[in-house]
Amino acid sequence: MAEMVRIIGIDPGLRRCGWGIVESQGNRLSYVASGTLTPPVDLSLAERLVQLHLGLLALLDQYRPDEAAVEETFVSAGARSALQLGQARGVVLMTPASRGLPVGEYAANLVKKSVVGTGHAEKTQVQTMVKILLPTADFKGADAADALAIAICHAHHRTMRRLAVSA
Amino acid sequence: MAEMVRIIGIDPGLRRCGWGIVESQGNRLSYVASGTLTPPVDLSLAERLVQLHLGLLALLDQYRPDEAAVEETFVSAGARSALQLGQARGVVLMTPASRGLPVGEYAANLVKKSVVGTGHAEKTQVQTMVKILLPTADFKGADAADALAIAICHAHHRTMRRLAVSA
Repeated sequence: MAEMVRIIGIDPGLRRCGWGIVESQGNRLSYVASGTLTPPVDLSLAERLVQLHLGLLALLDQYRPDEAAVEETFVSAGARSALQLGQARGVVLMTPASRGLPVGEYAANLVKKSVVGTGHAEKTQVQTMVKILLPTADFKGADAADALAIAICHAHHRTMRRLAVSA
Repeated sequence: MAEMVRIIGIDPGLRRCGWGIVESQGNRLSYVASGTLTPPVDLSLAERLVQLHLGLLALLDQYRPDEAAVEETFVSAGARSALQLGQARGVVLMTPASRGLPVGEYAANLVKKSVVGTGHAEKTQVQTMVKILLPTADFKGADAADALAIAICHAHHRTMRRLAVSA
């Protein structure tokens, strides 16, 4: 029987940071939980990053995932917004690694391709496919759906890697 | 007698993160320590950010600064390098705030102006002035000098704010 692994997917953001947890066992996927962290905007930048860090630590404590997956940020926007997003992403990558979790990074196109079958899917297509792949998923909003899609992408790729190794 | 405050200045970077600690009492400044954190480049990005976080936590534990100051990053470079720098900067802002330290942010021009007198100073001028303002400073390299300059800038501005409040 294939090993069961619990994965947290995280869609980094300072205003809205989506998270979603799935369990993967062989080619079976099941939904555990999802949500969105929203550090209060009236705090200083440093304090908002602390809230993001503490929020993620609380999720790691509550759900005890084995591995983490984070979207590789697509930097189409200007340098200023890339810097802003980078600040949140630094905390998002660091926090699960600080608890010893392996952290996978996946390009946005690869996440969409894993879930929808094409790298150029719309957000609504991602949400629809997440709902089909995880029928019990009770997510609110695009950020949580994106985070679940990242977790699903990680589950697919780790299974493929295992098959490649054992072949 | 003016209160004594110990300040850590940090020049964010993933490859080389400069840090410098000064004590400020009224208009007197004194050097405490400085150095550069260099997370191993052969680790994953998430693990390098953890090393940066742990390195900063160790400095906070060892030197017990009261306040922190971080340079506001100047985003002249492309979006990709801004994202990279942002990731280190997010961890650098978050770590002292997670220990309850107030974290000041200062534009690079303001740091240079505070230390050299002009916002368009060269790196060597910054190093020379840091050495004059902190005669006992024993720093190696531009990153530690920049971090000390950031700490000096914070010391000047917090004194000016105190004077403004008490006037």
